[in-house]
Formats: sequence, structure tokens, C-alpha cells
Amino acid sequence: MDIYAAPLKDQLFCLTRLSGLDDVQNLPGCEEVTAEFADAVLQESGRFASKVLSPLNHTGDREGAQWVDYRVATPAGFKDAYQQYVAAGWNGLGCDPEFGGQGMPKLIVAAVQEMWRSANLSFSLAPLLTVGAIEALTLCASEPLKHQFLPKMIAGTWAGTMNLTEPQAGTDLSLIRTRATPQADGTYRIVGQKIFITYGEQDWTENIIHLVLARTPTAPAGVRGISMFLVPKILVSTSGQLGEPNDVVCTGIEHKLGIHASPTCSMSYGDKGGALGYLVGEENRGLEYMFIMMNSARFSVGLEGLGISEAAYQKARAYARTRVQSRSLTGGKESVTIIHHPDVKRMLLMMRSKIEAMRSLAYVVAARHDFAIRHPDAAIRKQNQQFVDLMIPVVKGWFTENGQQITSLGIQVHGGMGYIEETGAAQYFRDARIATIYEGTTGIQANDLIGRKIGRESGATLFAVLDEIDTVAAELAKFDGDHFAAIRAALADGVRAVRRAGTYIAAQFGADATAVSVGAVPFLELLGIVAGGWQLARAAMIAQTEIDAGRSENFYKAKIVTARFYSDHVLSAAAGLAQTVVCGAPGALDMANDWY
Amino acid sequence: MDIYAAPLKDQLFCLTRLSGLDDVQNLPGCEEVTAEFADAVLQESGRFASKVLSPLNHTGDREGAQWVDYRVATPAGFKDAYQQYVAAGWNGLGCDPEFGGQGMPKLIVAAVQEMWRSANLSFSLAPLLTVGAIEALTLCASEPLKHQFLPKMIAGTWAGTMNLTEPQAGTDLSLIRTRATPQADGTYRIVGQKIFITYGEQDWTENIIHLVLARTPTAPAGVRGISMFLVPKILVSTSGQLGEPNDVVCTGIEHKLGIHASPTCSMSYGDKGGALGYLVGEENRGLEYMFIMMNSARFSVGLEGLGISEAAYQKARAYARTRVQSRSLTGGKESVTIIHHPDVKRMLLMMRSKIEAMRSLAYVVAARHDFAIRHPDAAIRKQNQQFVDLMIPVVKGWFTENGQQITSLGIQVHGGMGYIEETGAAQYFRDARIATIYEGTTGIQANDLIGRKIGRESGATLFAVLDEIDTVAAELAKFDGDHFAAIRAALADGVRAVRRAGTYIAAQFGADATAVSVGAVPFLELLGIVAGGWQLARAAMIAQTEIDAGRSENFYKAKIVTARFYSDHVLSAAAGLAQTVVCGAPGALDMANDWY
Repeated sequence: MDIYAAPLKDQLFCLTRLSGLDDVQNLPGCEEVTAEFADAVLQESGRFASKVLSPLNHTGDREGAQWVDYRVATPAGFKDAYQQYVAAGWNGLGCDPEFGGQGMPKLIVAAVQEMWRSANLSFSLAPLLTVGAIEALTLCASEPLKHQFLPKMIAGTWAGTMNLTEPQAGTDLSLIRTRATPQADGTYRIVGQKIFITYGEQDWTENIIHLVLARTPTAPAGVRGISMFLVPKILVSTSGQLGEPNDVVCTGIEHKLGIHASPTCSMSYGDKGGALGYLVGEENRGLEYMFIMMNSARFSVGLEGLGISEAAYQKARAYARTRVQSRSLTGGKESVTIIHHPDVKRMLLMMRSKIEAMRSLAYVVAARHDFAIRHPDAAIRKQNQQFVDLMIPVVKGWFTENGQQITSLGIQVHGGMGYIEETGAAQYFRDARIATIYEGTTGIQANDLIGRKIGRESGATLFAVLDEIDTVAAELAKFDGDHFAAIRAALADGVRAVRRAGTYIAAQFGADATAVSVGAVPFLELLGIVAGGWQLARAAMIAQTEIDAGRSENFYKAKIVTARFYSDHVLSAAAGLAQTVVCGAPGALDMANDWY
Repeated sequence: MDIYAAPLKDQLFCLTRLSGLDDVQNLPGCEEVTAEFADAVLQESGRFASKVLSPLNHTGDREGAQWVDYRVATPAGFKDAYQQYVAAGWNGLGCDPEFGGQGMPKLIVAAVQEMWRSANLSFSLAPLLTVGAIEALTLCASEPLKHQFLPKMIAGTWAGTMNLTEPQAGTDLSLIRTRATPQADGTYRIVGQKIFITYGEQDWTENIIHLVLARTPTAPAGVRGISMFLVPKILVSTSGQLGEPNDVVCTGIEHKLGIHASPTCSMSYGDKGGALGYLVGEENRGLEYMFIMMNSARFSVGLEGLGISEAAYQKARAYARTRVQSRSLTGGKESVTIIHHPDVKRMLLMMRSKIEAMRSLAYVVAARHDFAIRHPDAAIRKQNQQFVDLMIPVVKGWFTENGQQITSLGIQVHGGMGYIEETGAAQYFRDARIATIYEGTTGIQANDLIGRKIGRESGATLFAVLDEIDTVAAELAKFDGDHFAAIRAALADGVRAVRRAGTYIAAQFGADATAVSVGAVPFLELLGIVAGGWQLARAAMIAQTEIDAGRSENFYKAKIVTARFYSDHVLSAAAGLAQTVVCGAPGALDMANDWY
């Protein structure tokens, strides 16, 4: 089985040249984050990803999490890997130093998270959920609750989970039925059933801290009546000592298409009368708290699309370099390695160019998120937050859809071998398939994009971003050669397409949200494509500048060719997508529901 | 588990209104194939698909073909289903009446095959391979060999397989190493290893007739030195009696992403000195014989893309009609079934419109294939054969790529439930993934299309087809309303895009096949999209004519809306794909192999 190697060179290029690590370093609390520091952190996490997590990826898939004797057994090696992971301090990398975290900026955390996703997606979901729970508590919980639970969660001694979904309530959290009854001592008793709880039970940590959405008896109907509760698996005294088991059990795990090593649990709360729960923040504000941490969670799942794509690309590239099959179209009597064949090159570059587009965009979003949180000037914070809000659905939706396409191409490059499970390419394809669904489907992301992020503000942030991209397209004119001419033309076409579609959305959303919503997912794809092209164009200009300065490395040459490929093979779809957004409603809405 | 129901109404519409069943009926040997006859056959095969094959689809996936005690055990119920299948005469539906087949035209066979693919892809592969072997023998074998083997194969008493692939020889058959040594009695002794042999071993039939590609000692190197041999699992006397086992064994089966119920076998020939083989046709013409039957085989695999898409669509539609989640964007306080949500409508119509485009195109190609084989006028035969040759890679390549997208949308419509194996949506996604690989990958289809089918004849057949489509686009002008205006504009844009790309390919293929080849797959997609749009536009005009004549059924209304949807959501990609074909080479070819 191939071992993942972190793409350090491109990651550092994106960090330092495209995302402005220098500027992030100037933010309060980020003073130590120099380029050298980032390099050292990434080297270390890259090593951990390759040596500890990657070797368990395929064995974890084959073995799977098991449900044995009413307990979850994770695959061999996973518990040990987790202990190494927390011992090395990776769990608290981005967490609040007040409770033992390392307070790293999101830019660094993004690069490190990408590696975990690449090396072992199933493993990485446990820390992802723990960090999500930590973030929710950090932002919303009372000080006593924080002090009681955060230090051990940040240390990784205890894990965290998110309990939202119920059989009848997936996307639609208004349908949640789990009940929380207040007690005289200020605690609550929780009764209800939750499903699809990632790492709801495991054998790694002495305790698991569940964050549970539920309704109090006096709660209003719908989403305004949902509260968030902290429900420990094992009861914890105020001084932090473990006590008796709480009234919560895992009742089984799912048999899934992929991410087999990660247990997806059904949880039953209150079979013996009610699980002890602590209210997080105030009653009836649970959904609001969820939304506060939603940006981080969705960004993290977006990185799954990037990370698994990188792993699939590395595997396909290695196969294409060694598999000998058919003669070259350019002549010769001997069969050649398949990387010589134009269609294989096309597939590899489709994978590569989208991966580099995603990585550069993700890191830019992460850096601006750091500005949105840490910059002393409120106006700058706000401006950056608006950019982040606009781009989060793109990172979640477009990246994870790309993950499907790229892992599928990974199989295709392998030919018949790709269909054999032992090869490993199929696992990426299966694992990637969940990412467009959980933490809000692509349709939910796209509707968030056109509604909350564009419709509500008449596209102000979107059009500001398009102006930024236009500036880049104009800069491209200073660079000579066919490649830059093609990149510039494609990017300009792309901006024109987004402007056409965005103008339609901004103008029509208030009047006819239903019609605009038909084009939501095509618009999300369109914006993703153009935003990715924007970053690749910036990268190409930096690369050419380096080459002109005598640093003619293959890395820089490849950057330019990759941006060129993306222009003709990805950005070329922009105008057609805009057409779909603007004109596509009647074809969907004139179909009566009983005509299907 | 949902049960597949054959889409008889649309199938009969495609047969009678779009593919010219009346004209096929006028061909020699097709006299009995009236619309009533077709209806009766399809009703019967639809019943068999629903009642016998569909209920085994999911259980077959869960159980899988097993390798136990050096034998293949197929899942429960499959052997019995096969016995019913052959008893009902389905195996020989399209085969030569001289040897017991029913001699049905390909048009009828296509509609019936679609059902088998929908109901149970794994099951359907065994008859698919048997029919492939029957066709090869019918076209290429000596009369004695035909009489010795064909009757029992057509009856289904014996199955057939195709043995091409070896570990080092997949796409590249020039690398085949299996040896065939001539014996004094005119037979051969076969020695070698074959892999990926679908139903190479099973427990359904008393004998299995393997067609094996191998080299004789005097064979020239490369593909011109490959011969085809008939190698029975159990030796057969000239009078047809079964004798001793031949020197061929299955050595194991693969653990695959999907089609779990169908055993994919490794075969070892000649461990005890050499398996007895009969030469099919002449020495060194094996590859040529493969190509003779390639059209049928590739068409059959194309139908897998169609069939599995239909099954995934039926399942998603049923779920969308019952799953209640979130309120309608058009108002109301209660949550509604998700089919009310615009993005779900979009997904269902993306599935549906592509399925109807594929079905209508497949049946048109099948009907023209009947003309190419049976019409008394050689000029008409030739003209139809050229159309079929052009379209076969589109049917194979575009349909199977659509199958990936549509089965993935099938999961997406189900949300989190789609990722749970028990739901069944994921099985379609896994099963569909093989179809872009076997019987020639999408890249192979696309290179066949741009090379053999367009480059060699400077695009003559392609441009003739485009003229046909232009005529349809002009006819659309006679129909009123927004829908027809949009369909017409999109189809005209589509033809323009294909003409641009086709002109480039025809002009440049001779000079720079490598550059043209970068755009091969995008061109295949482009031609598929436009050819599908052509058929949907024809269907919409027929539907409007029926409505104008007072037959205003929902079926006809839906046809028009479906064509409209396709225009704005699928055909809209045409111009961008043409841009990729014409301009996409430098971005791929300027990337050195060690820069990836």
C-alpha cells in the first residue's frame, strides 16, 4: 500500500506566497508563526501523517469499526495512533491557550488538517468532532463548564461529539424531538434518540463529551426552541473526577459505503430515566450556537475534499509512472508507462489543477479568517469575515464535489486494478462520498451561498471579490506568452460569468427564491471554479516572476502549466454554468411532482 | 428494498416513435415484430426483471460470490433465477435462429437488455458474456465448431466467457503471453494465466465455453500475432457429449468495489500440460474477430450505464416522494416531502433527462444497427453502419460516465441515508463504477471516436449527423412557446460546438494525434450531450403534436419539460467543452512527466 507524503513544497508556497503568512504573523498572538516555524510544524505533522496515520488507512478500512458485545472496537492500531497524536500535542493545535491549546492561527491549522484528511480520513474525524465541540464550548459555555471540561478535551484525554441528527430530523433540525427536562439543581435530564453520531462511542478515551441538541418543555416550536446540552458519557465532578456512567448508550453502528474505520453510532439517551446534561449558554439558542461554529466545521469538511483528493492523486501518479501499457502516440515500438498517454496526462492534470486550486483557495480563506478574528481594526475584521462567510459554502460544497470527481479519476487512471479493493484507489472513492452530505449537503451549502451570503446583501461581498479577481486578470496582461494569454482570457470569461449569474441572483432572490434556488448548486460550482482559477493565476504570476529572476525550478514551470490546463479544462465551463443559473429554472419548476 | 419497475411507457415511446420500429419490422426476418409484439415482449421481460432479478440484487451484493473450497459459490437464488431465465428463452433472444436463437432485432434486444441491467447488473453479466461468445463464434468459427457448441450456448445450457486480460496486458493486448501450441490433430494446447474473467467460473451451468486470446509459436509479435481459441471447461465430444475436465482452473476471485454477486476470476490454463483448445477462424486474426463483435459488446456495456441509472432514479424518486424535511421555499408552516425542494427537483431532472436522452439515443443506434445488418440495399447498410460505428463509443463512453454521475446523485438525494449500505443507493454507485473501465475505458472509447471514427474519414459521418441535427433544430422553429425556443437555441449552440470541435479534430488528427487526443474524452462527452439533446428535441416535438391533437397526457407534458431542462442544464456545457477540445492540448502536453 502506498504511503502518503505531505506536499510540503506546495503547502509552503501557498502559505507564504499566496495566503500572506507574513501578514498573519503580524496579528496578535501569531508573533511566533514565521515561515521557518510553519516549515517546522508542517515537517513534523507531515512525518506523523506518513509514519503513523497513513499506514493504518487501508487496514482500518478492511477491518472497520466493529460492534462487539455492545461496545465499539476500533481497528487495530487506531487507539495507539490516537495516543501518539494527543501526546504530540496535535489535538489542541488551534485551541485557546487559556485551556491548554496552542493557539495556532487557522492558516497553520488548515495546512496540518489537510494532512490528517489525506493520510487517514476515518481517523481524522474523531479529532475533527472533538475540536468542533471544543469550539462550541469555548464560544458559548459558561466559565465553570469551560474549566470543568475544556482542559481535558483540548489535551485529548476526553473526546467530543456533536449530536444533531434524529431519524426524522436531518437537514431539518426543526423536527428534533429529544427532550431536556430541567432539574432543581440547574442540570437537565435528556431523553431521546440520535443517529449518525460520528465516534459517538469508541475505545480510545476514558470519557466522551457529547454536545446534544434537544428541546426543553417550554421551548417554542421549530428551530427557535432548540437548546444545546453537554452530556458526558461518564459523569464528571466539578473538580474533574470521573464518576458513574451517565444514562447514555450507543445502541449500534452503521454499515456504510466508506469511512469504515470511523464508527457512526446510534445513541440512546435516558433509557433509565434521563441522562444528566448541562445547558450550554442559554435555552433556545442551540441552533444559533451551532451556526457560530458552523464556519469552522464546514471549512474542516471542505478540507476533506482537498485532502482525500491529494491522496488519490499521489496514488494515481505513482501508478501512471510504473504501469506499462500501449505504445506512445508519438511513435516508438515499445509500450510505455501510461503517464505518456495524453488522456492519462489529462486525468492527472484535472486532479492536480483542481487540488492546487482548492489548496490555495482554502489557505487564503483560512488566513482571512485569522484576520476576521484577530485583527485589531473592527472594519478589517468585518471585511474579512464577509469574505470568509461568502467562501465557506464554496470550500465545503465545491471541494467535496471535487473530491468525488478526483477520487473517481483516481480509479480510472488505474483501469481494472482501480476496481479491486486491495489496490486502495476505491477506498478513497468510497470515503470521499460522505463529504458532500454531512455538515450540510451541497444543496444546503449552495442555498446558504445564494441566500444568506448573496441575496441578503444584494451581492455586495461577491462583487467586491469579483473586482479583486478583475485586478488579477488585468495584471496577467503584463506577462508574455500563450499560457498567460489563455489564463487571462479564461479568468476574464470566468469573472464575466459569475457577474452575470450573481447579478441575476442578487436581483431575483427576493422576488423568487424558488427559481433562483434551482441554480444554487450550479452557481456554487461556478464560483468555486472561478475562485480557484483566481488563485492559480496568482500562483502562475509569482512562478513566472521567480523564473524571470533566475530561479527556474520545475516547481515554478509546473505552476504555470497547471494554471494553463485549468483555464482550458475547468474555467472553460464557466459561461455554460452561468447560463444554467440564469435560465435553468423553468425546466425544473414546470415539472409537476407527479410527472416524474 | 425497492423493486425495479420497467419504464415500459417510455421504452415503447422510444421504440415506436423515435427509433422507427415500423421500419425495422420491414427488414428481412423482422416481420413479426409489430408494436403489439414489442409491447408483449417488454411486458414479459419487465415482469421477469421485477419479480425474479430485482429481488436478488441487494441480497446478491451483500452475500457476494464466494470462493470456497476452490470453487465459486454464487449468492442464494442466482442459479435458480438463471434456470428460469434460460427456460423462458431470454438467453437466445437476439441469436441466430439456425442454432436455436429467436433472431430478434437489436432494437428489441436493447430494450430487454436495459431491464436486466437495471434489475440486477451482476446477474446480467453472465448472459452478456455468453452472448458475446456466441456472437464471436457465429461470426468467425467454422461450421463444425458452431454446430458443436452454439446450440447449447444459445439455449443457456452452457455459458460462455471472454478471456483477454493478463496481468501485464489490459488495454494493451499486444502484451499477451498465453501460448497455444498446435497438435497433430488440429487442436491446440493452451498454457497461460488470465485475470479479470467475468463469470470465468460459476455453479449455474454444466459447462463453460471460454474464448481465449493466445499466441501460436509462429505468431508475429504484437497484436497481429493473437489468435482466438475455444477452450471448454469440460471436454465435449463432436457429438456434443460431455467428457473429462479440461486443463483449466479458476484460481481465485477478486474482492471488488461493486458487482459483488458476479465472480471476477483468475484463470489458469495448462497447469497439467496444456488445455485443449480449438482455433476459432484463422490463426493471428484473433484481435480482428474481437473487433467484429466489439460494437455489440460495447453497446451492451453502454446499456449498463443506462440501466443502472434508471434503477437509481426510481429509488431516488421514491425516497424524494416520501421523505419529509424542511419547509417549502414557497411558504407554508409544515415540512414537506423533499421533492418540493428546487435542488431535489434539479437532481431528479438531471437524472431523468439524461436517462431519457440515453434511452432514446441507444434505441436509435440499435435500430440503425438492424438496418446495417439486415437491409437488402448495400448502400443503406453501409450508411447505417457508419452511423453505428460513430455512435458506439458515445454509447459506451458517455452512458457509463453518466452512470457514475447519476448513481452519485441517487445517493445525494437520499442524504445521509444514501451512505448507509442497507438503503441500496450506494450499491448502484459501486456497481456502476466498473462500466467506464471494462470493455475499453472511456479514454479508449474516446480515442477510437476521434481516430478510427472521425480522423480516418475526415469527419464525413459526423458532419452528416450534424446536418441531420440541424434539420431537427430548424423543425423546432415551428413550435411555439418558451420551452421550444430554449430547446432550439441550445440544440443549435450544441451543433455549433460539435462542428467547431469536429472540424478541429478532422483537420488536425493526421498532423498531431497527440494534441487532438488530449481533447478526446471532452469531445466524446460533447458529442454525447448533443446527440442526446437531438433525440430529446425530437421527443418534445412528437409530444407537442400529441398534445395539440388533444392527447394531453402528463407523459407528453413531461417530455417537453424534460427536454427543456436538459437544454439549460446539460446542453449548456457544449460550448465550453468545444473550447477544451480545441484549446486544451498545450496545458496537458507542456507538463513534463517528472513535474507532476
